[in-house]
Amino acid sequence: MGQLDATYCYIDEHAAGMVADLQRLVRQPSISSTNVGVRECARLLAAMMGEVGISARVIETDGLPVVYGSILADRPNAPTLLIYTHYDVQPADPEAAWEAPPFEARIVGDRIIGRGTTDAKGNLMVHLKAVEALRATCGLPINVKFIFDGEEESGSPSLPAFFERHRALLAADAVLSFDGGFDAGDVPRITLGSSGLVSVTLRAHGAKKDLHSARARLVPNPAWKLVWALASMKSRDGTITIDGFYDHVRPPTEAERRLLEQAGWDDAAQLRDLGVDRFLGGVTGVDALQQLLYAPTCNISGIAAGYVGLGRKTLLPAVAEVNLDFRLVADQRPQDIVEKVKTHLVRNGFGDIEVFSESGVEPSRTSPDTPFARLVADAARIVYQREPRIAPTSDASGRQGVWFATKLGVPGAGSAIGPPDWRGHAANEFITLSHYIAGVKYAATIWTLFGDQQTTAPELAVSR
Amino acid sequence: MGQLDATYCYIDEHAAGMVADLQRLVRQPSISSTNVGVRECARLLAAMMGEVGISARVIETDGLPVVYGSILADRPNAPTLLIYTHYDVQPADPEAAWEAPPFEARIVGDRIIGRGTTDAKGNLMVHLKAVEALRATCGLPINVKFIFDGEEESGSPSLPAFFERHRALLAADAVLSFDGGFDAGDVPRITLGSSGLVSVTLRAHGAKKDLHSARARLVPNPAWKLVWALASMKSRDGTITIDGFYDHVRPPTEAERRLLEQAGWDDAAQLRDLGVDRFLGGVTGVDALQQLLYAPTCNISGIAAGYVGLGRKTLLPAVAEVNLDFRLVADQRPQDIVEKVKTHLVRNGFGDIEVFSESGVEPSRTSPDTPFARLVADAARIVYQREPRIAPTSDASGRQGVWFATKLGVPGAGSAIGPPDWRGHAANEFITLSHYIAGVKYAATIWTLFGDQQTTAPELAVSR
Repeated sequence: MGQLDATYCYIDEHAAGMVADLQRLVRQPSISSTNVGVRECARLLAAMMGEVGISARVIETDGLPVVYGSILADRPNAPTLLIYTHYDVQPADPEAAWEAPPFEARIVGDRIIGRGTTDAKGNLMVHLKAVEALRATCGLPINVKFIFDGEEESGSPSLPAFFERHRALLAADAVLSFDGGFDAGDVPRITLGSSGLVSVTLRAHGAKKDLHSARARLVPNPAWKLVWALASMKSRDGTITIDGFYDHVRPPTEAERRLLEQAGWDDAAQLRDLGVDRFLGGVTGVDALQQLLYAPTCNISGIAAGYVGLGRKTLLPAVAEVNLDFRLVADQRPQDIVEKVKTHLVRNGFGDIEVFSESGVEPSRTSPDTPFARLVADAARIVYQREPRIAPTSDASGRQGVWFATKLGVPGAGSAIGPPDWRGHAANEFITLSHYIAGVKYAATIWTLFGDQQTTAPELAVSR
Repeated sequence: MGQLDATYCYIDEHAAGMVADLQRLVRQPSISSTNVGVRECARLLAAMMGEVGISARVIETDGLPVVYGSILADRPNAPTLLIYTHYDVQPADPEAAWEAPPFEARIVGDRIIGRGTTDAKGNLMVHLKAVEALRATCGLPINVKFIFDGEEESGSPSLPAFFERHRALLAADAVLSFDGGFDAGDVPRITLGSSGLVSVTLRAHGAKKDLHSARARLVPNPAWKLVWALASMKSRDGTITIDGFYDHVRPPTEAERRLLEQAGWDDAAQLRDLGVDRFLGGVTGVDALQQLLYAPTCNISGIAAGYVGLGRKTLLPAVAEVNLDFRLVADQRPQDIVEKVKTHLVRNGFGDIEVFSESGVEPSRTSPDTPFARLVADAARIVYQREPRIAPTSDASGRQGVWFATKLGVPGAGSAIGPPDWRGHAANEFITLSHYIAGVKYAATIWTLFGDQQTTAPELAVSR
């Protein structure tokens, strides 16, 4: 790693300026949920990207803008890495709970306190500083593209349309996302996948208006219709009985199962945390973790009809509605699942139930055997001098880096440079100076290894 | 009917005073839902009962008081009739919608306008005036007991406990209730039964608190548990699959079926009114009416879990709840049905679902062949000179006269003396002077026929 020594040296020597630039970005609020300062922050960010040589522009979406940037390698035939993270932040209220104003970015001891210091302006800024440090020392080893989302804290609703419109801008050999912080015990974390999700609302109709329940002898009850439709979709043993639902489920590989075994899953702690006596289906240990990460679901997230509560009403509801969310796993596809739900309903005599759905989030999973996944782990070992925790996938869903990778058909990985217990979404969010500076080195190291690997691993280029 | 001519004559001659007494009662508000004037009205009513010779008292219940009264026949060995109706009224708002103040009881043309003029102070007052008229002419032919409910407009919640506590006071040979008005076309109506009702709430539990829906892979969803439990209780063809549910259902007799055939049921009008294309199970004509009156139900009146609506939340609910109402038919019993629901759940592996229920309302049905039912119809023919509409039972449920009769194990009938379209529960409720005065005659005639019959129909005494 001789070539990186000079870069690390540069980063340590220029730490003060790197901290000052993070403070500058944090001081510009960018709260997406209330649209406070988001466009101002996008312009500031594009300017700061320009300062380190990135060609940047603010691209409008159906919602709040994406800040896009690209910079060419200082060598020929270099691979291209797409970086995804976000510049929007959570609201800061209640401000009274903060020990320093949330947008002051005050340094207290070894911490920079402020909304977005870790989530995700710190995670974002390390990439700009990696560009600066590499260009000032051994040169940028790869082409880098940047997608800085302005709506991540609101669920990135505009990202799918953005992706379709600007697909040509996004071509890359791999995708990396940085967001959040280390695991407990100050352990760096690498995530190689995420769950997919699609929400479906079923609405059943009876009479034109709510009726007195005495009429239930003559008029169909839409709540009963929903009950029977739902019971036809999932059996009591938990099996989802929608035809073809499991068709595209990709089971864990040997390497993934090994990662699960190393994850330190603790049944007792998880049961306590969830507030239940046993896991669904009676699974235990690594099997429980595998079920959490690899089993798709059909979950009733809400059901409503008529009136429930004090002073019961004897009514026959006119409408009944259920919200289902399907947590998907690679390689299921949201729209395929929605079609299967519709087909199931029609085939089972429930064709008069209305089905509403949204675009959903695709699940994604990069194998831990992929060269790109290996080099990200290697970079963590080099910079942090410890074994990273590698999660083959996540139980949650999001349009993050690995999602972009899946959409592009290339490997992807997510990591994070903030401290553990960084108080995400809460008062007194912070990043430590040392985690921030180490994060710049981590980014620079990943890029360097990616540049090295690409010259010896031509199979990556093929996957493009 | 020679003996009644003098009574009718008295009633006509004293109409002005009878109207004035109804006005006096209407002028005292007695709104049970807001407890406005109810106890004042109870005291006034007891005093007015005393004025015609009834021994009356206000009996406190768990809620608002019952006004109880009794008066002995002017002859020996007379049968006893229990009269049930109510002195509480609906609220009068919005008062601006009334053409005369709701508690003024103003006479406009042939109408007395005011809250309670028909529902049920008019229906009540005719009995006091029947006592007065009979005592002033040929003497009271029967013993009469009066239960004037103070909570009927609130569903008579205290009546079951009142019944149990004061059962000894209530012994009678038959029960008569008056409430409401004539059917369209100015046709007197006699109802010989009512449906029963019991509401049951089922509550299923999952984790201790709502969780992110990604946890649905490991934690049971109480909404699914309810769906499966419900699906086990009723099949898609509408059959209630709770063991023994139909055990005590008493089918219609030949006489009851004939009454259904005479009822003038109109499929098209009913379908239009209900807002559906066909009736449940595809029934038509008299069969549809029979299903409406004689089929018990298991109705989902409300179901709730998690969140439904705009901005879907991907959550795993901790609790799911369903309200079921069972519309019962003679001779099902509410508590028996609740026990059967509990047994069903335990036997089908849903023993961890909590069951909450209330006392319910018993269904009741007096055969149209009963001498008491026949004499009430005869009285209507005599007074109104037309054929009454006789309903063998009602799709609705209530703790009315027929309910009392069933509790006492004697025949019961319900009728009504108000005008058709009397604007019940709405602004400008009224009674016509002629319906009111004819109502006094109707009551006096029923009592007289009951006294006559009792001497020739000893089987009635046996049924006591």
